[in-house]
Amino acid sequence: MNQMTNDTIGQPLSSDDRRTVEHEETRDLISSDKVDGTAVYSTDGEKLGHVDHLMIGKRSGQVKYAVMSFGGFLGLGESYHPIPWDALEYDTDRDGYVVALDKEKLRDAPYYTSDAPPVFDANYGAGLYRYYGVFY
Amino acid sequence: MNQMTNDTIGQPLSSDDRRTVEHEETRDLISSDKVDGTAVYSTDGEKLGHVDHLMIGKRSGQVKYAVMSFGGFLGLGESYHPIPWDALEYDTDRDGYVVALDKEKLRDAPYYTSDAPPVFDANYGAGLYRYYGVFY
Repeated sequence: MNQMTNDTIGQPLSSDDRRTVEHEETRDLISSDKVDGTAVYSTDGEKLGHVDHLMIGKRSGQVKYAVMSFGGFLGLGESYHPIPWDALEYDTDRDGYVVALDKEKLRDAPYYTSDAPPVFDANYGAGLYRYYGVFY
Repeated sequence: MNQMTNDTIGQPLSSDDRRTVEHEETRDLISSDKVDGTAVYSTDGEKLGHVDHLMIGKRSGQVKYAVMSFGGFLGLGESYHPIPWDALEYDTDRDGYVVALDKEKLRDAPYYTSDAPPVFDANYGAGLYRYYGVFY
């Protein structure tokens, strides 16, 4: 059995801490486990909610949206805001994602509740990407 | 607040079942929630384990590997087998992923244990993709 050992695949590991991090995250890659639950902030620093799950292209393996869950956002029940992956920036100081929109704009962004999810088709995607100012 | 309504984003929803499915999966997209925990089979139909998590490119949003967890695989403790996304095929009959390798080949595939994870760098990726016969 060919378990790849460290000397064949890269630098040796130096500490237990580092090992834990590398199981879930490297410089270039991050685990879906670690993304789910990560806090989301607006550009003005307000914590808005957290990543509930990712929507991924079945064939391409491309993450299309991070779906933010906002419990009781603006007096509503839990709502889900799909945000294009490219509209999220990771902020290492805050240890969370920042959406490149101000709060006013984010308030008007498309969302849904669990009893009436959208059809995630090309039309929906196009509207969402346009709203966030990112493109396929 | 502009909640996108169904008539602006696609076909109306027809049943509660469909709504539940559409929150997690559509024809083209699938939720990370739904991928994690999904069974993995070899081409000869043997259940090997399940998807533990996905490793995703931070900038690109591209899923690079599905990391299979195989509890007690071949007499070892829990082991983790990163498999390139493109080497997995979803089988609707089995409701799980099938790895396009026979069991002998899979047995020799790169894996790691949680106390000694690899450095997921370009070298590691290249070796893995080559082993599974898929390319970046």
